[in-house]
Amino acid sequence: MTVSIGIIGTGMIGEEHARRITQSLTDGRIVAVSDVNADQARAVVDRLGLDARVYDSGLELIQADDVDAVMVTSWGGTHEEYVLAAIQAGKYVFCEKPLATTAQGCRNIIDAEIEGGQRRVQVGFMRRYDSGYQLMKEAIDANRLGEPLMIHAAHRNPTVPERYVTPMAIHDTLIHELDTFRWLLDDDYATAQVVFPRKTRHAHSKVEDPQIVLLETIQGVRIDVEVFVNCQYGYDIQCDVIGEEGIAHLPEPQSLTFRQAGQHSNEVLQDWKKRFGDAFDVELQAFIDGVANGTVDGPSSWDGYAAAIASDACVKAQESGQIESIEMPDRPAFYA
Amino acid sequence: MTVSIGIIGTGMIGEEHARRITQSLTDGRIVAVSDVNADQARAVVDRLGLDARVYDSGLELIQADDVDAVMVTSWGGTHEEYVLAAIQAGKYVFCEKPLATTAQGCRNIIDAEIEGGQRRVQVGFMRRYDSGYQLMKEAIDANRLGEPLMIHAAHRNPTVPERYVTPMAIHDTLIHELDTFRWLLDDDYATAQVVFPRKTRHAHSKVEDPQIVLLETIQGVRIDVEVFVNCQYGYDIQCDVIGEEGIAHLPEPQSLTFRQAGQHSNEVLQDWKKRFGDAFDVELQAFIDGVANGTVDGPSSWDGYAAAIASDACVKAQESGQIESIEMPDRPAFYA
Amino acid sequence: MTVSIGIIGTGMIGEEHARRITQSLTDGRIVAVSDVNADQARAVVDRLGLDARVYDSGLELIQADDVDAVMVTSWGGTHEEYVLAAIQAGKYVFCEKPLATTAQGCRNIIDAEIEGGQRRVQVGFMRRYDSGYQLMKEAIDANRLGEPLMIHAAHRNPTVPERYVTPMAIHDTLIHELDTFRWLLDDDYATAQVVFPRKTRHAHSKVEDPQIVLLETIQGVRIDVEVFVNCQYGYDIQCDVIGEEGIAHLPEPQSLTFRQAGQHSNEVLQDWKKRFGDAFDVELQAFIDGVANGTVDGPSSWDGYAAAIASDACVKAQESGQIESIEMPDRPAFYA
Amino acid sequence: MTVSIGIIGTGMIGEEHARRITQSLTDGRIVAVSDVNADQARAVVDRLGLDARVYDSGLELIQADDVDAVMVTSWGGTHEEYVLAAIQAGKYVFCEKPLATTAQGCRNIIDAEIEGGQRRVQVGFMRRYDSGYQLMKEAIDANRLGEPLMIHAAHRNPTVPERYVTPMAIHDTLIHELDTFRWLLDDDYATAQVVFPRKTRHAHSKVEDPQIVLLETIQGVRIDVEVFVNCQYGYDIQCDVIGEEGIAHLPEPQSLTFRQAGQHSNEVLQDWKKRFGDAFDVELQAFIDGVANGTVDGPSSWDGYAAAIASDACVKAQESGQIESIEMPDRPAFYA
Repeated sequence: MTVSIGIIGTGMIGEEHARRITQSLTDGRIVAVSDVNADQARAVVDRLGLDARVYDSGLELIQADDVDAVMVTSWGGTHEEYVLAAIQAGKYVFCEKPLATTAQGCRNIIDAEIEGGQRRVQVGFMRRYDSGYQLMKEAIDANRLGEPLMIHAAHRNPTVPERYVTPMAIHDTLIHELDTFRWLLDDDYATAQVVFPRKTRHAHSKVEDPQIVLLETIQGVRIDVEVFVNCQYGYDIQCDVIGEEGIAHLPEPQSLTFRQAGQHSNEVLQDWKKRFGDAFDVELQAFIDGVANGTVDGPSSWDGYAAAIASDACVKAQESGQIESIEMPDRPAFYA
Repeated sequence: MTVSIGIIGTGMIGEEHARRITQSLTDGRIVAVSDVNADQARAVVDRLGLDARVYDSGLELIQADDVDAVMVTSWGGTHEEYVLAAIQAGKYVFCEKPLATTAQGCRNIIDAEIEGGQRRVQVGFMRRYDSGYQLMKEAIDANRLGEPLMIHAAHRNPTVPERYVTPMAIHDTLIHELDTFRWLLDDDYATAQVVFPRKTRHAHSKVEDPQIVLLETIQGVRIDVEVFVNCQYGYDIQCDVIGEEGIAHLPEPQSLTFRQAGQHSNEVLQDWKKRFGDAFDVELQAFIDGVANGTVDGPSSWDGYAAAIASDACVKAQESGQIESIEMPDRPAFYA
Repeated sequence: MTVSIGIIGTGMIGEEHARRITQSLTDGRIVAVSDVNADQARAVVDRLGLDARVYDSGLELIQADDVDAVMVTSWGGTHEEYVLAAIQAGKYVFCEKPLATTAQGCRNIIDAEIEGGQRRVQVGFMRRYDSGYQLMKEAIDANRLGEPLMIHAAHRNPTVPERYVTPMAIHDTLIHELDTFRWLLDDDYATAQVVFPRKTRHAHSKVEDPQIVLLETIQGVRIDVEVFVNCQYGYDIQCDVIGEEGIAHLPEPQSLTFRQAGQHSNEVLQDWKKRFGDAFDVELQAFIDGVANGTVDGPSSWDGYAAAIASDACVKAQESGQIESIEMPDRPAFYA
Repeated sequence: MTVSIGIIGTGMIGEEHARRITQSLTDGRIVAVSDVNADQARAVVDRLGLDARVYDSGLELIQADDVDAVMVTSWGGTHEEYVLAAIQAGKYVFCEKPLATTAQGCRNIIDAEIEGGQRRVQVGFMRRYDSGYQLMKEAIDANRLGEPLMIHAAHRNPTVPERYVTPMAIHDTLIHELDTFRWLLDDDYATAQVVFPRKTRHAHSKVEDPQIVLLETIQGVRIDVEVFVNCQYGYDIQCDVIGEEGIAHLPEPQSLTFRQAGQHSNEVLQDWKKRFGDAFDVELQAFIDGVANGTVDGPSSWDGYAAAIASDACVKAQESGQIESIEMPDRPAFYA
C-alpha cells in the first residue's frame, strides 16, 4: 500500500520532509500541499516534481478524500488546530514539535485522540530514531550500565539568528532532550532549575547564552544539559549516561581524521540536518509504515504533552531562578 | 519511472539486494528472479512478498520483455555469460564482483559493450559509495593531502570458513581494495608483491593467513594491504592515505563508548554487511537511477577488467614470491 | 645546596614523599622523621635506608637545627599546630591538604605567616603541577578559548572504604577541584549548591554517592563537578573548560589501545597515585627548589584558606539543599 | 654511592645528558668533559654550573682516576675508539648510537668486552625505556596478543636538514626501530627490503623520502616501517603489533583536545626530544644505577652489533632494490 500524504506548511522542514518521502523513502507519496504562502507551496511542488494538489488551506487539505495522512510542518501556533482537525477527520497525523504551544493545547489533542479511540498522532521527536540514541536505549534497557544515576548532556549550535530569544533555548532547543531523556530512562521529570553562566560575547542582546538546565526525574536521576547556541565551533550533541556499573557516551559523527599542520583533527558537523539526517529518514518511514499498518506508535500526543509540561517548568525556572516542581498527571491507559 | 529488475542468483547477496530494492530504495521493483535452485528463488519471492515471475534460467529472464535491468548475483563462474547476454539484449546489468573469473572474460564483456555503443554494466564495487571513502576521494581530489605517496590499509575478518583458500585472499577479499585504490588515486597498478607473515594458529590448513600485499602504482604510490581473515576480533577496514601535506584516516564505525570494568571501550563490528550497509543502498540506488536516466556510470566493465588483471598478478605474486609486473592495456576512449 | 627535610607523619603519603625525595628528586634529603607511631617512623627509615633521626614529636623535629624545611603529612587534625610551629621557627613548610580543618585555623596560619613577613607555606595541591592542567592553564591564559564560561568536571574513584562519609566528598575529594578551578580561572567562588542523584547500590549506608556540586564564580563561570567515589570502573578525572571561542578537554592518561575480542579498548587507571605521580614529583621538586632559593611560591596559605571556605560552603549546601553563598575576604597584598 | 661521570662530546645530546644528570636524575654527577672543540666543552661547564674538569682529549678523560663511567656522545666516527678505551680502562661506558659505524667495529667492542670478562657497555637505545613501548613489551610477553605476526610502524619527522641523505634514513632514523623490534619480539632479522614511494616535493635532492622498509624476522614476523622525514605535520611514532589474538597500538602523546573552529583536534608533537624525554631520564638513571650496582644490563654491545648488521643490510637493500638476507652470528653466552 502506498500512503497518500498531505503536507501543511512547506517551509524548510516541510519541503525537506516532502523531498525525503518522494526521493528516499518507500510507500509514501505527497498528494496534497498547502501553505499560508500558496506561491511557496506551488514552488515546492515544482522543485520536487510532485504530482500534488495545492490547497488553499490546511483544513481543506485535511478533508481531502485522497489524503490518508497529514504532516503538520507549519508555524507552531497552528499545530493544535490542524492536529485536532486531522483526528476529527479520522486521519493519521505527523506533527513537528511542538505538538501545541501550550500544555492545555496538548491536553485538548489527547482528549480528542482518546475520544476517537485510536492513536492517530506521531510527534516529530526524531532523536528516538537516531542510531546512537537507540544503542543507548538498548544498553540501558539491557541493564548494561546498571541503574542510570545521572545524565550529562550538551546541545550546542554554532550560532542562532536575532529572533532566537531566551525561552527558545527551552521550546526550540532543549525540547529534544526533554523528550529523549524521558524515553531513554522510561521516567518523568520531578523538578527543573536553570542557571545562567556568564554570557558569551557572541550572543545578541535578547538571549541569555549559554544556559544550564538541571532536571531531576521521579526515579532520582539527575540531568544537566548545557544549552549553548552560539558556541561557534559546530553543531554538537553530547550525551553521557552514568549508571551504577559504568558510563555510556553517545557516538559522535565521524569524518576523516587528518594529521596535518601540527594537528590531529576531525571535522565537527556544522549542520543539524546532517547530524540527524538518517534519523529523519527512519522517523518518517516509521510513520508511513505505521499509517499503512494502522499502528502509529512513535512519540505520542502524551509525549508531546509531557514535553510541553516540562518545557513550561523550565521556562518558569529561567524566570524565577528557583527549583521548580514539575507535576505530570497520571498517564492514561490509552498511552500505556 | 519505475525500473523493472530481474535478479539472477537468489543466494544471500541476491536476496539482500532484492530486499533493499523492495523495502529501502525507490524507483525499482523486482519483476523477475531465477536461480540454479528454483526452489530457493521461489522462497525469496515468498519471503519478500515479491510480485515477480520465477524463470527457469537466467538467459530466459534476460530476454523477458518486462525486464529493464538485470542483477547478476549468481556464482562467479556464470557472470560472464549473463553479462554478455544482457548487453546483447540491450539491457542494463549490475554484476557483483567478479565481472568475470578471468581477465579475458572481462575483455570479452568490454568488447561487447563497446560494440553495443553504450555503457550497460555496473560492477558491484560498493566501497566507492561508502561515505568514508567518498570523503577520502574528495580530500584527495581537493588536494588537501598534496600528492598521495603511500596507502597503508588492512582488510580484516573475524574468521573464514574451510572453503576459503589462499588465492581467495585476493579474489574475494583484496579485490575491493584493488578497485578502491585505483579509483581513489585515479591511477593504475605497476607491480605487485605478496609476503606471508608467520601463520596464525586460527587459520585452517589450506589458507595462508595473514598476508601482506604490496602494490606500486604507475605514479609511484606505494600501497601495503594487510589481509587477515581470521583476526578474531572483528570486521575491520583500515585505510590511511599519506600525502605530501598530511595524512587522512578513513572514519571507523562508531558505537557507544563505554567506561566500564577498567576499560574505555568501543565495540568493533563483526559483520561486513553492517559495515557497508549504507554503501549498498547508495550503490543500488545509483544503478536504478542510472537505468532510469540511461546513464549507468558507476564502476565500469573497464574497472572490473582492471581489478581482474591486478588480481591475477597478485595471485601470481603469491605463488612466485617475486615482484610481479602488472600490464594494464590502454584505456579505450569509450571508458574515459 | 641540598635542602634538609624533616617529615612529620610517615603514613602512606609521608612515606611516598620521603621515597620521592630520596630516590627520584634532586637537592633534597630526609634528615628527620616523626610519627605518632614511632615504630612506623623507624620502619620507614629502614625501608628507604634513610640517614635520618627519628623524633618523638613533630614539634621537636621542627626545632631541630639541621631541619631546613618541614613536610606535614600527618593526620589533618594536627596540621594547623605543626604549620604554625614551623612558621614560628622560621622554617619552610609543605603541608598536605587540608591546611587546617577549619577556615579559622587557616586564617591563623595566614596571620602568622604575614606577621613573619615571608611566605613559608606550600599547600599540597598537586594538580597545579600536572602537565595536563598546566596546558589548560596556558590555553586559558593565552585566551585560546576566549572568556571561560563553564567547566564540566568529574572526579571518580572505583570505590571508597567504610570510613568515607558524605562530607568527605567535599573535604577529601572535591577539595582538589576547589583549588584547581580557582587557579585555572584566576577567580573565586560566589555560590555553591549540591544535588544528590539516586544513590548507587555500590555505596555503603553512610555516604551519599554520587553527588553533583554546582559552583558559581564571581566572574559568573558556572562549574558542575560530578563526585562519584564508587563508580567501579576506575579512577577518572575529567575536566572540560567551555569558553566563548571553543572547548578544551583535559588529556586522559593513555595506555596501549587494544583491538581484541570485539572491542577497541584502552585501560582506565585504577590508582590515583599513578594518575598524578608526575605531578607529585614536580610539586615536591618545586618546594625543594623554592626552599633552596628562598622563594616558596606554590599554592599558598591563602589558597588553603580559600579552599577551606569553599569547602565549608559546599558541606553547608549538602546539608541545606540550598544555594549557599561563599564570602571570600579580600586577599591581602602579601599574597598578591 | 654517587657515580662520577665523564662526558666525551658536548654537542646537543651531550649537553642534554649532562643537564639531565645534574638537574633531574639522582646519584650521578659530571666530573669531567671533553670535546673536539674545547671552548664548547667549557661553555657547557659554565652553562650548567658543573664542577667538572675539561680534558683535552677523550682518551685522557677516560684514564682519569675520578671518572667511574664514561658517556660517549661525540661524533659517530669516534665511538669505537672511545668505547674500546673505556673497556680497556675498566670503566663503564654509555655510548650513543651507533656503537660503531661498522659491524666489524661493533664486533671489536664485543670481543674486547668478552675478554674483559664483564659487561661494561650500554648503548643509547632509549625507546626500550619509553613507558609505551614497555607496556607493549609486557603485553607481548604476557601473551595478551598471542604470537605476534606483524608490526606496522612509522617514524615521521616534520623536516630534516640538507645534510640528511638517503642512507641516514637507516643509520639515523630506522636504527631505533631496528633495535626496538628485536627487543619487543625477542627475535632477530632474516631479510630486509626497501621500497621507495613517489618522492615528496618537500625533500631536497639528496634524499629519497619517504621510504618503506620491510623486514622479516627469523620467527616469520613481517614488519613494515614507513620512514618519512619530511612529513611536515609533526614528529610521529606509530607502532601496531598484530598478533593471533588481537592488536596493540602504541600510546600517542596527548595534549589538550580542542573543539574549536569546526575542528575536534589534538596537537601533534613537533620535537622528538619531548616525545622521548621521559625515556631519556629512565635510560640514564638505569645506567647510573647499573654502574653503582656493577650490573649494567641495558641495550648491550651485542644489541649495537645486531642493529649495525641489520642497518648494513637495509642500506644494501636501498641500493639493490632486492630482498637482502641478514646473517646474524650466534649470540655468545656472555650476552645471554
